[in-house]
Amino acid sequence: MPEPRLDVLCIGNAIVDVIANATDEFLAQEGLTKDSMRLVDAEEAERLYDHMRPAREVSGGCAGNTAAGIAALGGRAGFIGQVAPDQLGGFYRHDLTAAGVEFSTPPVDVGVPTARSMILVTPDGHRTMNTFLGAAQELAVDVLDEEQIRSSGILYLEGYLWDPETARNAMVRAIEVAREARRKVAFSLSDLFCVDRHREGFTALIDEARIDILFANEAEILAMAGVPHLETAVAAIAPKVETLVVTRGAAGALAVRGGERADVPAEPVDKVVDTTGAGDLFAAGFLYGEATGKTLVQSLRLGAICAAEVIQHYGARPEADLRALAGELAA
Amino acid sequence: MPEPRLDVLCIGNAIVDVIANATDEFLAQEGLTKDSMRLVDAEEAERLYDHMRPAREVSGGCAGNTAAGIAALGGRAGFIGQVAPDQLGGFYRHDLTAAGVEFSTPPVDVGVPTARSMILVTPDGHRTMNTFLGAAQELAVDVLDEEQIRSSGILYLEGYLWDPETARNAMVRAIEVAREARRKVAFSLSDLFCVDRHREGFTALIDEARIDILFANEAEILAMAGVPHLETAVAAIAPKVETLVVTRGAAGALAVRGGERADVPAEPVDKVVDTTGAGDLFAAGFLYGEATGKTLVQSLRLGAICAAEVIQHYGARPEADLRALAGELAA
Repeated sequence: MPEPRLDVLCIGNAIVDVIANATDEFLAQEGLTKDSMRLVDAEEAERLYDHMRPAREVSGGCAGNTAAGIAALGGRAGFIGQVAPDQLGGFYRHDLTAAGVEFSTPPVDVGVPTARSMILVTPDGHRTMNTFLGAAQELAVDVLDEEQIRSSGILYLEGYLWDPETARNAMVRAIEVAREARRKVAFSLSDLFCVDRHREGFTALIDEARIDILFANEAEILAMAGVPHLETAVAAIAPKVETLVVTRGAAGALAVRGGERADVPAEPVDKVVDTTGAGDLFAAGFLYGEATGKTLVQSLRLGAICAAEVIQHYGARPEADLRALAGELAA
Repeated sequence: MPEPRLDVLCIGNAIVDVIANATDEFLAQEGLTKDSMRLVDAEEAERLYDHMRPAREVSGGCAGNTAAGIAALGGRAGFIGQVAPDQLGGFYRHDLTAAGVEFSTPPVDVGVPTARSMILVTPDGHRTMNTFLGAAQELAVDVLDEEQIRSSGILYLEGYLWDPETARNAMVRAIEVAREARRKVAFSLSDLFCVDRHREGFTALIDEARIDILFANEAEILAMAGVPHLETAVAAIAPKVETLVVTRGAAGALAVRGGERADVPAEPVDKVVDTTGAGDLFAAGFLYGEATGKTLVQSLRLGAICAAEVIQHYGARPEADLRALAGELAA
């Protein structure tokens, strides 16, 4: 197995975030479940947008955020995802490339625009996402650069990519290619409702040992295991993957690998502004640690440091110098 | 003269800001003059963008920022400006409308996109702007709603609108309509280089008494008066307008109206993040004060409060509750 050319190759929905403040009353009026992600069609996207406050636009998408975080730590990151040849697609490409991420998937013109997620941030900093997938769902098997996948140490995929059928097929093929090349496969369960929508598919991925590193937050691991207690869920899922990572917000994070178990607290933060991207940046830190041979607890610490940075400002891409924040851990 | 339906109607370039951090070395390499605005064509816009760091997009444009600020204070604000029927134009319309600003100029499709300004923010918080005017320069006389102009207490125009010829003609006509209706006309000199480019036109506007309230920063008033000292410049220009307002950054601001003179210090701020919009929001506070019958010093204080808010975050539109910040002054 040759030395990898990239540390981590991330595959996911290429999405520009449209971020606005909102009240809890507004979420209630709209019938939205706080902290979750729902898919919306073009019509609902327009209707909701008309009711939102002034917004700011920042490139996002879980896997894209993770790739940007890994690059900010000094890692070699790539991204595969689908944009349209429009203004948002141009922003998306610029922002990833300028962050130092290899991104060569060409835009596709099938009459739908680049994906956007309308993100409502409540005064407590929590985010509720409404995503119009647009061109992101057109990610096709034939745009995968299989040589790029084979030459990446870790392939990282977001569970959200299971939603659109075309992209799901691309994802399944990418996993095959990575496994054949004996690379690691990492996967995020993404969202509680995403687990509900795709329980069967996710269960198959896990039970068939196609995932080496599984990321979940507390709600997702409970849903996946179908039990009401964290430790029971961890005990049920951990034996099925090489490494299980569970993020717990302000309560920190834990990881289990074989007989090893590590727990870390959350990094202290001055003020939570916007939790968007917390899980994505946690994954960035952890995967960077894995790619550079850190211990389990060190990788968790890297994840916690990156997550803490991203929740202190609007947007899900790092703004501060993550490499400096990580100090010796990034050395 | 009937009671105005709008407090302030703002006319300016409809621009989406593309904001990225940059070093002073980068500005030097690119030969850019810090704190200034330069116009770029599509090719140069693309070239520069390729070299910029990851960015965030926020609706901007001086007069649009001022309109948003007035609405945030509780004033009745309108905006006239030209966007294209594209994604950026959609964001621009949403952001102004959601801020409570009346904005009815229809998009125009002449094959150029909505304007964008690539704003480089250095670590000291100062901004340097590179503007591709696109559709903004297509603002035509025939899209002016003259009834809207006649029913607005103050017409506010940015000097930048003098750059594109079509928009300049619209601006001159709007001033005529406002003056015929015996409404106040307010005008910002916008930028040092803008004064240099349009000295003749600006001098005519001032000398022919077509401007009631003139806004300038220190560099602009010196350039306009053609003298090297602030007080000399103020003494030269003040007699030609009903009210002269000069903003001086951290040194505060002053206003002269007939025999009356007022000076206020800048509001204290924790950290200057991005000075973009400082002058626009100062104008918003001052004009809101004028529209609601405040004293000269109260209007200056309102300006200082609004400017202080906008420089403490990225983007030139208010994020905090300006009305609450202004307290009794907004009552």
